[in-house]
Amino acid sequence: SIREFLNDQNISDVAELINDLPEYESQIVQHMNMHRAASVFKILDLSTQKAIIQELPPYKTAELLNELPADDRTAFLEELPSEVVKEFIRLLDPEERRVTLALLGYPEGSVGRLMTPDYIAVQVDWTVQEVLEHIREVGKDSETIDVIYVVTDKGEFVDDIRIREILLAGPEKNVGELIDNRFIALHVNDDQEEANQVFKMNNRVALPVIDDKNLLLGIVTIDDILWVANEEFSEDMQKMGGTEALDEPYLEMPIMKLFKKRVVWLVVLFLGEMLTATAMGYFEDEIQKAVVLALFVPLIISSGGNSGSQASTLIIQAMAVGEITLIDWWRVLRREIISGLMLGAMLGLIGFFRVVFWNTIFHTYGDHTLMVAFTVGFSLVGVVLWGTVSGSMLPIVLKKLGADPATSSAPFVATLVDVTGLIIYFSTAYIFLRGILL
Amino acid sequence: SIREFLNDQNISDVAELINDLPEYESQIVQHMNMHRAASVFKILDLSTQKAIIQELPPYKTAELLNELPADDRTAFLEELPSEVVKEFIRLLDPEERRVTLALLGYPEGSVGRLMTPDYIAVQVDWTVQEVLEHIREVGKDSETIDVIYVVTDKGEFVDDIRIREILLAGPEKNVGELIDNRFIALHVNDDQEEANQVFKMNNRVALPVIDDKNLLLGIVTIDDILWVANEEFSEDMQKMGGTEALDEPYLEMPIMKLFKKRVVWLVVLFLGEMLTATAMGYFEDEIQKAVVLALFVPLIISSGGNSGSQASTLIIQAMAVGEITLIDWWRVLRREIISGLMLGAMLGLIGFFRVVFWNTIFHTYGDHTLMVAFTVGFSLVGVVLWGTVSGSMLPIVLKKLGADPATSSAPFVATLVDVTGLIIYFSTAYIFLRGILL
Ligand SMILES: [Mg+2]
Ligand SMILES: [Mg+2]
Ligand SMILES: [Mg+2]
Ligand SMILES: [Mg+2]
Ligand SMILES: [Mg+2]
Ligand SMILES: [Mg+2]
Ligand SMILES: [Mg+2]
Ligand SMILES: [Mg+2]
Ligand SMILES: [Mg+2]
Ligand SMILES: [Mg+2]
Ligand SMILES: [Mg+2]
Ligand SMILES: [Mg+2]
Ligand SMILES: [Mg+2]
Repeated sequence: SIREFLNDQNISDVAELINDLPEYESQIVQHMNMHRAASVFKILDLSTQKAIIQELPPYKTAELLNELPADDRTAFLEELPSEVVKEFIRLLDPEERRVTLALLGYPEGSVGRLMTPDYIAVQVDWTVQEVLEHIREVGKDSETIDVIYVVTDKGEFVDDIRIREILLAGPEKNVGELIDNRFIALHVNDDQEEANQVFKMNNRVALPVIDDKNLLLGIVTIDDILWVANEEFSEDMQKMGGTEALDEPYLEMPIMKLFKKRVVWLVVLFLGEMLTATAMGYFEDEIQKAVVLALFVPLIISSGGNSGSQASTLIIQAMAVGEITLIDWWRVLRREIISGLMLGAMLGLIGFFRVVFWNTIFHTYGDHTLMVAFTVGFSLVGVVLWGTVSGSMLPIVLKKLGADPATSSAPFVATLVDVTGLIIYFSTAYIFLRGILL
Repeated sequence: SIREFLNDQNISDVAELINDLPEYESQIVQHMNMHRAASVFKILDLSTQKAIIQELPPYKTAELLNELPADDRTAFLEELPSEVVKEFIRLLDPEERRVTLALLGYPEGSVGRLMTPDYIAVQVDWTVQEVLEHIREVGKDSETIDVIYVVTDKGEFVDDIRIREILLAGPEKNVGELIDNRFIALHVNDDQEEANQVFKMNNRVALPVIDDKNLLLGIVTIDDILWVANEEFSEDMQKMGGTEALDEPYLEMPIMKLFKKRVVWLVVLFLGEMLTATAMGYFEDEIQKAVVLALFVPLIISSGGNSGSQASTLIIQAMAVGEITLIDWWRVLRREIISGLMLGAMLGLIGFFRVVFWNTIFHTYGDHTLMVAFTVGFSLVGVVLWGTVSGSMLPIVLKKLGADPATSSAPFVATLVDVTGLIIYFSTAYIFLRGILL
């Protein structure tokens, strides 16, 4: 039967089936046992989750929501409008409702929103034997039994201990003898990105979450951190490319919504870029006198944009993984000045010879080729240097101001450098060509 | 004593200590017990690892390398030149040497390079009691005991089983009664990025790795996948920004090496961008006749670049998380054509009114303002549309050709659109201004 078939599939296979057969999504969920249905539900896209919930009969929705692990329930509810959330919370059993309201009370993006209260807690004076018995009793409802949490009778966190330690110890040993009172804990208000770093640096599958009073509030498991890592990076990437972070899969997003996510930054950048027309207007006479100058405008400003987006990407990425912090700004600046000069010199040389060489073959640039070539070469050094410096400093400044360093950085830097690049270019032209062409 | 102090710290704290006190790095390692030293070593940066290895006395190096878990040893060795690897492999005990050579035999970026052979294997006819005894015997050397692997006497993989199932079952039960013969396994030649997806979709802390003959070769643990995810995304981001992937932290990279990683793409893009000078040269007469046209060149082409880098980022990101595959190209194209038209219309309108409005105030653009405004407006539609289309299709084409879709995409698209944008702009100008200004 369908029920047997579905219960015989891996969770991820059922999820794929649902993605492939959207018209049967709610039936599929209804034909599984609720525990497995919840496991499938939690790995689906938000849009699929919403569609399923809308199609399920109310009592099934209630069952599903109650069965969902507390952390996954939070992850789902936090994406919904508050009226819907209220309605769904009313469907929960009293205990689950209490937990859910507590979890949703923590700020978005905080560790509190990731945690689950379903862990195994034991006390210092228990024996290994007692711990094992306790696990057999309550282990079924726990998110993980790979790590056991030791607390005082007041619920204060003492230490965690891996199941391995329990299993390898004699049954008469006390928990107190097995722990070392040394632990890594997350704070409930920590940023989720920070939690990602802590998990990376500490070989743990789950970490305890405590509050200011050292009370154990819940645990965070590494599988959820893997999702956080994936989401964080997707977000950073989208922001860098100059869109707001999409919160739905690209292909499923209504086209008007996609438009809205993109148009804001595009218009902002366009308004900034309008300054190039103003700057160019300022140099209109020079262009009239020496049209040859106009020919190199796109080449010059785009080189600044490219070196700038290189620099900003490098710095954003290094900041994202914690390699660079605000206090390193001076080291970064020093390195980018040197890099910028080297890169600029390289492009400047190529640009210089491009002009000279073309003129030798095509006689394109008239009598003053050499001066034009110098103008192009030197302004490339200046523009590339300015690109690396502003590209590397912008993310640091954004971070300092409390903004996300990734915010639209690459196109933002390009716009900045386009405008200033024109000024650098025409000023250099003025130095080399005054009295000759200008 | 120092030894006591160090053994009392968390692994990640010792790692931080080493980063803060590079002059004591090898001493710190020597003053810890080797097992903990290995745990610290594996989370350090490559450059710190190298420095420590160089400073350690040879017998300590040998001890450390032998103590390092097989997967972390592979991760370290694969970054070193082959002569050094050979030398280090000679330092290993026969068994570790055999394992290491086998792991290094798998292709870079494959699951084989991530796996460890230190897992607990049991057979179908064992009882829970026997399994627990076995764990107590060999559990100390296993990477994880959270999952137990069931194999035939020939080493073929049968199923995996979580320690929770073992603990919750009665001691007399057979392993065969606990398993469901349904499992998720990685193939040894799978891509590491694929493994990341599999872990995301299946709530497991470790997965078995098998070969074509279904032999169990090792396991991959989720903590290492977290590193893979972080590295993959860093790499993608760097490539998108137009650098080769850095394999060292930004601040520690010698400046010449940083230069080399950046200059290649910058020169390639520069050479491409030179076509803009050629294209501009082709329209030199038109610019001479209507200098006003030159004023909007940066504005027009940068709008194409911005919309293009938006589109390419969105698509690369969606491809990276598996939302879009090659077969979706037509759906993507259709959406990008619509989006491009809408975005282009928006910018075109703003551009049109910018020209008209400026002229009303400053009388900048002469008698034919309206025609200039139409030129700017319509070419913006064309350029933005071309930007979204080429930006979205480039990653798909790159992938189709077997290249990494992230490769330098944002600046690459910008360059492509700069050149073609000029052609679109001047062609539009020709339509509107022929016989008037041109
Ligand atoms: Mg529950
Ligand atoms: Mg969320
Ligand atoms: Mg401890
Ligand atoms: Mg979980
Ligand atoms: Mg969870
Ligand atoms: Mg972020
Ligand atoms: Mg070993
Ligand atoms: Mg590696
Ligand atoms: Mg199974
Ligand atoms: Mg590990
Ligand atoms: Mg490992
Ligand atoms: Mg990649
Ligand atoms: Mg540009």
